[in-house]
Amino acid sequence: VSITLSASDVIQTLAEVRSSTPLVQCLTNAVVTNVTANSLLALGATPAMTDIPGEAGLFARIASAMLVNLGTPHGDQRIAMLEAARAANEAGTPWVLDPVAIGVLPVRTALAFELLDLKPTAIRGNASEIIALAGHGSGGRGVDSIDAPESALEAATHLARRYGSVVAISGATDIITDGARVLRVSNGHRYLTLMTGGGCALGAVTAAFLAPTRDVLSAVTSATAVYTIAAQMAAGRAEGPGSFAVAFLDALAAIGPADIRSHLALA
Amino acid sequence: VSITLSASDVIQTLAEVRSSTPLVQCLTNAVVTNVTANSLLALGATPAMTDIPGEAGLFARIASAMLVNLGTPHGDQRIAMLEAARAANEAGTPWVLDPVAIGVLPVRTALAFELLDLKPTAIRGNASEIIALAGHGSGGRGVDSIDAPESALEAATHLARRYGSVVAISGATDIITDGARVLRVSNGHRYLTLMTGGGCALGAVTAAFLAPTRDVLSAVTSATAVYTIAAQMAAGRAEGPGSFAVAFLDALAAIGPADIRSHLALA
Amino acid sequence: VSITLSASDVIQTLAEVRSSTPLVQCLTNAVVTNVTANSLLALGATPAMTDIPGEAGLFARIASAMLVNLGTPHGDQRIAMLEAARAANEAGTPWVLDPVAIGVLPVRTALAFELLDLKPTAIRGNASEIIALAGHGSGGRGVDSIDAPESALEAATHLARRYGSVVAISGATDIITDGARVLRVSNGHRYLTLMTGGGCALGAVTAAFLAPTRDVLSAVTSATAVYTIAAQMAAGRAEGPGSFAVAFLDALAAIGPADIRSHLALA
Repeated sequence: VSITLSASDVIQTLAEVRSSTPLVQCLTNAVVTNVTANSLLALGATPAMTDIPGEAGLFARIASAMLVNLGTPHGDQRIAMLEAARAANEAGTPWVLDPVAIGVLPVRTALAFELLDLKPTAIRGNASEIIALAGHGSGGRGVDSIDAPESALEAATHLARRYGSVVAISGATDIITDGARVLRVSNGHRYLTLMTGGGCALGAVTAAFLAPTRDVLSAVTSATAVYTIAAQMAAGRAEGPGSFAVAFLDALAAIGPADIRSHLALA
Repeated sequence: VSITLSASDVIQTLAEVRSSTPLVQCLTNAVVTNVTANSLLALGATPAMTDIPGEAGLFARIASAMLVNLGTPHGDQRIAMLEAARAANEAGTPWVLDPVAIGVLPVRTALAFELLDLKPTAIRGNASEIIALAGHGSGGRGVDSIDAPESALEAATHLARRYGSVVAISGATDIITDGARVLRVSNGHRYLTLMTGGGCALGAVTAAFLAPTRDVLSAVTSATAVYTIAAQMAAGRAEGPGSFAVAFLDALAAIGPADIRSHLALA
Repeated sequence: VSITLSASDVIQTLAEVRSSTPLVQCLTNAVVTNVTANSLLALGATPAMTDIPGEAGLFARIASAMLVNLGTPHGDQRIAMLEAARAANEAGTPWVLDPVAIGVLPVRTALAFELLDLKPTAIRGNASEIIALAGHGSGGRGVDSIDAPESALEAATHLARRYGSVVAISGATDIITDGARVLRVSNGHRYLTLMTGGGCALGAVTAAFLAPTRDVLSAVTSATAVYTIAAQMAAGRAEGPGSFAVAFLDALAAIGPADIRSHLALA
């Protein structure tokens, strides 16, 4: 089933995020903490990187939304991630799982499956990661190859139906599904792939969009659209990946209704 | 008691920092290490993020000044923080405590109280953090609310008198007290609050200003003034939070006597 | 013995790096992970900061090249570093050792000597670090003073002959030796010393250049030349250390044959 989402829907969701300044807890990797926090601040949310055992769960109960990103899952952080996910579920805090580089790497893959069983509100990853995550229960496939986003739609649909999560597959066209409906966002720019954290920060922005709403499919799609349109705005002012990263934060702060109406490429 | 500090005093203190290129050890959170190190380098100091048990104390003896920031206090770093603070005291190295987000979060709150007993040379935090820190010994208040800087002046005065620290409360107007005298700096720009590390890096810059002097109140106030004036200089060249962060580092390197004379808003 | 390397050699090596998009595993310090990953992406390589025990060794077998940087060697990361270095040797993955701040600091110094015994493909450090590393086996000298690059040439030659590594000494003029031949690169800009990670990211770029070739001396020299010429290109567009860091990433992406021909200062 395909549905559509209008530019007005995206604009309204962004306005709700900004007016509520959600407190977004991020348990994320060491490489991207800075750009992740800055992306949330630019957008109008409040980041908090609370990832210590004994604090992470407590914070997940008061946060507006939460992100678990498996990019560099050190020992204590792994404990904190499970603690936070369990607390989020108990408190009704929506949360996002980003299963970075799972498949071949055993520590994070085992952790991803534990987290998956806690039913994240949303999951985002590239095609290989989504396929690897869906391998859970059917033997594990240890995917490391680069797969096209469409090739992961079956895996995403399976995950969405089994765990009740909305699943986003990143790529030149991002695909988002709740297991029944499918949306595609064709915004973005290749510079996003030359900025470390270009994908990871979207996980945090997705969490911010989950905070003020119960319509998870719409929230994940709106987050993806706003983020990738901001990338297009920034690319027009950039002379390379360095100036792109700077202009991207400016664009996340500046993006408004007119930008969304003129750029949105949603199917 | 209110005193004044002249632009000439601030200018001279900055000159002393730059001419001595202080070696500033930072035990700080994972989100802001990069911008903290870059702020120190831009200003003319030398950063060293030595925070390993077995090295942190040794380094605190040779550093010109030291910062302990509790933003993401992982297990080993907590041990290193206590080791460094004890060594700093023994060696006479001035040090700054930034009690990030204490009050509700139990691990860092307990650590903050242990560090407070080691009598930091200076303490900087927002109003809620200063109030929570002052709750030590009177039962703990677990403050998480957002308090106005002036509402924390009593708590700051109490801390300053009991522990011999100069205490800085951050806000639109920063308040600095040694328990008897009170200074207020009304420089700065809201973009600083949209750049992650905007407060944390000031803790490191404050440490740099402590290195060449024994007048702690003047040093903390001068650090705050230089840092927040640089923010105003940068804001004039920024188109958003991304370009602000870039211009801010340029401004920290460029700030000179004329900028301080024309911008300083000190009472 | 002095040899020369032509601009054409450097240009060809850069082209081979870009066309092979090497996967560069970095076990590096917390301060510079972001700028290191972004430098590799800008240049045309793919970074992966896999530094968890149980994953690091596995990844070192599939990576094109690997970096070990001792800037903030926390407990688990130290285990992962040895695991990765051993796996790299078994799999034939070239790797770079950057012995940051060894000499006085005991934890990293002991680790550096363990890693040295595993015979890194290349070693890069400042003069004090290279002299300290060469002290291994002759009693240890614990050097912390700032030494001129030329004063470390004897130590570098000793290391190169004993461990079979190509050794690069950073400075205003970088010196590179394989124990017999010596090359000097006089490119670069002082802004690189005001950007945290200015040295550390070169370690990762050096690893990227090792991936497509067996001529280690030429690869290390070419990496140094490309990196420091990019710094000169960026300095011409910068107004301070903040805008330099942005322009530097743009320059790493943009640098081409004409830039190398017009700037290369190699002896």
